[in-house]
Amino acid sequence: MSARQYAALPDPFVMHRGGALHGARIAYETWGRLAPAKDNAILVFTGLSPSAHAARSPADPTPGWWDTMIGPGLALDTDRWFVIVANSLGSCFGSTGPASADPATGERYRLDFPELAVEDIARGGHELLRSLGIARADAILGPSLGGMVVLAFAAAFPGAARRLVSISGSAGATPFAIALRSLQREAILRDPDWRNGAYAPEAPPATGLRLARKLGTITYRSAGEWAQRFGRQRIAGERAPNSFAPEFGIEGYLEAQASKFVEAFDANCYLYLSRAMDRFELAPLASGCVERALVIGVESDILFPIDGQRAIAAALSGAGVATGFVAMPSIEGHDAFLVDIPRFSAAIGGFLHQA
Amino acid sequence: MSARQYAALPDPFVMHRGGALHGARIAYETWGRLAPAKDNAILVFTGLSPSAHAARSPADPTPGWWDTMIGPGLALDTDRWFVIVANSLGSCFGSTGPASADPATGERYRLDFPELAVEDIARGGHELLRSLGIARADAILGPSLGGMVVLAFAAAFPGAARRLVSISGSAGATPFAIALRSLQREAILRDPDWRNGAYAPEAPPATGLRLARKLGTITYRSAGEWAQRFGRQRIAGERAPNSFAPEFGIEGYLEAQASKFVEAFDANCYLYLSRAMDRFELAPLASGCVERALVIGVESDILFPIDGQRAIAAALSGAGVATGFVAMPSIEGHDAFLVDIPRFSAAIGGFLHQA
Repeated sequence: MSARQYAALPDPFVMHRGGALHGARIAYETWGRLAPAKDNAILVFTGLSPSAHAARSPADPTPGWWDTMIGPGLALDTDRWFVIVANSLGSCFGSTGPASADPATGERYRLDFPELAVEDIARGGHELLRSLGIARADAILGPSLGGMVVLAFAAAFPGAARRLVSISGSAGATPFAIALRSLQREAILRDPDWRNGAYAPEAPPATGLRLARKLGTITYRSAGEWAQRFGRQRIAGERAPNSFAPEFGIEGYLEAQASKFVEAFDANCYLYLSRAMDRFELAPLASGCVERALVIGVESDILFPIDGQRAIAAALSGAGVATGFVAMPSIEGHDAFLVDIPRFSAAIGGFLHQA
Repeated sequence: MSARQYAALPDPFVMHRGGALHGARIAYETWGRLAPAKDNAILVFTGLSPSAHAARSPADPTPGWWDTMIGPGLALDTDRWFVIVANSLGSCFGSTGPASADPATGERYRLDFPELAVEDIARGGHELLRSLGIARADAILGPSLGGMVVLAFAAAFPGAARRLVSISGSAGATPFAIALRSLQREAILRDPDWRNGAYAPEAPPATGLRLARKLGTITYRSAGEWAQRFGRQRIAGERAPNSFAPEFGIEGYLEAQASKFVEAFDANCYLYLSRAMDRFELAPLASGCVERALVIGVESDILFPIDGQRAIAAALSGAGVATGFVAMPSIEGHDAFLVDIPRFSAAIGGFLHQA
């Protein structure tokens, strides 16, 4: 069962860094009802790896990645708002990306996909709104990469959203974050199975993708949370001498996370999205590009640090946007928006419900 | 030219976790003169990757890794002390390790090397002192892995050193540090050129070792220092579209560091030393195992965090050792001892010169 819908992008869809897509589309899911005036839409952009399936619905009752945030009476209250979650352009969950077939050849794009920019993902979302007849979203919202996308959206389409929520986003990645993502990409690029991007879908560069995901996972939480959850806990069982097999609980956890990811995500899409995150630098914001904004950062986030969150808030304020700023004391690091639901519900729900 | 000397270890040298070495040795260098009473020795243990060549000398005028700390009038004042730096057992700069020839076969040990523990490195240093006729070191000192080794030394050989300096060491690694080191090892283990440890010396698993070193390097400094040094600075020059070649200054820096390392370090030795760091847990310290101690930590160190430094100081105090604690405000993270020489000179020099 799937709740996935598709919006066709204009043909050609000219990309920010050159090149164009033909017959491209954005996959999305929705919850709640669009009001007759079409003025109650909240458009959500995701982080690097999730699909548009953010929450359960009658059409797809499988768990979503933000089930505790989207629904009747929740922070993104589907009794009031029409919530749309978009799969990013360049991803591999229904939207057009490097793993999609190039209509010119019938083959997967792979490295023939044009270079992807955060601005392209934003424009994909804007076209999605247009396809639904929504001239202005009541709010756009996104965590992580999605937090970059909402800023790019506000810069490119002033007035196309009334409000904006940036969660652990960035107006320009730090060299620490760039270094970590660069290494994730290199692990894939150096995997012989990557084959310069030409791997068969059933024979992906699993080793590289596993290493990349493990490194990501380590940095998505905080050292404090790992200490609390795993400490120096060991994995039970014998292992061969000098096998260098996992011994610690944290290593077993990373194994499990990596195995899940390799089953789900395409390596070339990962490379494109990851590089787009490194390259993004927020363009100047037009005065009043949105009316109000909420910027949320997490004090224990090492990838999208709290100083950068303050910089986002300052950029919005500088553009005349009434901007609130919340520094979450959550221990869960960059991923806190997936875990510290009480704090994020209160902040986001509170902001959205303001008149 | 080489200033390297060797001390033979007892034969057999029984290892902490089982197995024994035959004909094993420790490589070391010295500066200054051993007093007739043999009471002015400072024994230094190193981090994971350096050799015993910590400073220049007439016999080897090439740069050392701690030239600014060891010499006449410097913190480790060679006019007063006889400074000995040991290459760790298990390393590849003259001491016996996985890259050394097994006398039983004439071939490199590789994975037939017994499992290595931090306690073995400590005992190698203790035997080195004995071979020089030194019953008691005036001080033992070590940064990073060396900071673990001095603690293991104090636990195993109470009274064999009068004083101890632990710099950014650990009494038990955090799961964050374990995760990062585990991933470094996995990058090597998954490199097809590793060949289950049986690579030829001239065909090492360079890809894995490069990834490992890059990940280490990223975490040896702080995000704040990377931001200050590199920001979002770009590498000049054209690159092929979708080559995914390095674009940012930080990426170029990591490339250079990795290239140097692959030329110098043996992959199997790296695996053994890295795993020993994960496994180490400080044994109980005998009362008065040393007379006085100085524990130095760095507030921006993400690998050996400042809380862990406080725990080391508490363990020493709990064993009746007069213990000083310094939390360095250095921005350079774990590697600050190599960079923030003014602060480290003042703290270490001050401690050593106390009556």
